Amino acid sequence: MTKKGNWVIIGRHTVIEAIDSGQPIDKVLIDRQANLNEVVEKCQKLEIPVQKVPKEKLDKFGANHQGIAAFRSQVEYTSLEDLVPHLFDQGIIPLLMMLDRVTDVGNFGAISRSVEVLGADGLVFPAKETAQLNADAVKRSSGALLRIPLCRVRDLVSAVRFLKESGVTVIAADGRGTTPLHEVDFKQPMAIIMGSEGQGVAPELLRIVDHIVVIPQAGEMDSLNVSVAAGIMLYEAQRQRLPV
Amino acid sequence: MTKKGNWVIIGRHTVIEAIDSGQPIDKVLIDRQANLNEVVEKCQKLEIPVQKVPKEKLDKFGANHQGIAAFRSQVEYTSLEDLVPHLFDQGIIPLLMMLDRVTDVGNFGAISRSVEVLGADGLVFPAKETAQLNADAVKRSSGALLRIPLCRVRDLVSAVRFLKESGVTVIAADGRGTTPLHEVDFKQPMAIIMGSEGQGVAPELLRIVDHIVVIPQAGEMDSLNVSVAAGIMLYEAQRQRLPV
Repeated sequence: MTKKGNWVIIGRHTVIEAIDSGQPIDKVLIDRQANLNEVVEKCQKLEIPVQKVPKEKLDKFGANHQGIAAFRSQVEYTSLEDLVPHLFDQGIIPLLMMLDRVTDVGNFGAISRSVEVLGADGLVFPAKETAQLNADAVKRSSGALLRIPLCRVRDLVSAVRFLKESGVTVIAADGRGTTPLHEVDFKQPMAIIMGSEGQGVAPELLRIVDHIVVIPQAGEMDSLNVSVAAGIMLYEAQRQRLPV
Repeated sequence: MTKKGNWVIIGRHTVIEAIDSGQPIDKVLIDRQANLNEVVEKCQKLEIPVQKVPKEKLDKFGANHQGIAAFRSQVEYTSLEDLVPHLFDQGIIPLLMMLDRVTDVGNFGAISRSVEVLGADGLVFPAKETAQLNADAVKRSSGALLRIPLCRVRDLVSAVRFLKESGVTVIAADGRGTTPLHEVDFKQPMAIIMGSEGQGVAPELLRIVDHIVVIPQAGEMDSLNVSVAAGIMLYEAQRQRLPV
């Protein structure tokens, strides 16, 4: 087993062992000419992104990679299916932040800080099209990424469906919305979707959420930095939940 | 007159002419061995930062610098003494954002966007210990820096005194505060001071403000990214000012 900065592991046996023992894996690279269907299926089941690459790319990690390398995560993940019932069991009214394609490490870090400081219950994001949660991301989150519940899901549409079936109201923050933020009732179980800067929240998500919400005065939601808008959403939620 | 990217001007006569004609100047560099007291005094009167440098540094901008170079600003400044009465004259209840030593260009840009989008009336900051408002800053503000009133002042203590004399309540956002944000009455003329990340608002400012304010749920204010905290302050102000 060869390590590079402790975060890359190579070799079929080592990678399969790491996956089977439940180590958090960010990404698996596979030689595009190798026959490793068994590993690919295992990864798909566990929602670990797989990338097929030329053999030369793997050679950089050590000679005996046997066509496979895995990046171990610097953070730990929680299953959304475990987190939500756990919160309800504890008598907590869930408040979750969901990020749709927020790829900027600085924004992802700042939002993680807000989730922690403003007392939300977790951060939900897709495995693909998300900022890489490496050492830089952890630093920019002031360590929040190591302390808040993180749910990496295969796709947000399924996650939204699961949340709605669990009794969680799901709203999206988007400039195309009609509900002003302060009119949303945050005293119920709630998940807030923030979209990528530039693109906003994906149309397939907008179609299934309960409300599309705008920040008043904000001519266009896209005009606010996404981490600023996320902080405002969480602040309003917690303001409403304060004991009177 | 020699220009470099149009933003540096050199030569005694050219620089003095630029200053006298009211062109916005970010900084003046002066050969530390040249006798240019007249220009230095002129700059001090206009609150333009002056930096004494070795002659070699000036040589980079062209041979005939005559011991002086000036950086023209990419943004335009408004005088705080003009802005405040102008707002009152127009029947506007001023809402100003003041930045104490926010040196990070990304944060400065994001806060400028929030000032514009959330409809505040201007951004006030000291000439020294502030992010350089160059092309990068303008880009990161999505151009907001070109559109919102910017007041560059010699020092924030004098600016706070002027605001208080003008009937503006001045609050500081700081983890050492005791007033929860939602208990502040934003329907009055108001200026909000945000401090640098890490250091917070300077003690000499905390001593003279009307209230020191915390965002509820935030164990420590310092834990929120400064641009997120600034956005939350402006959101709360505008939420209270919405017509019922």
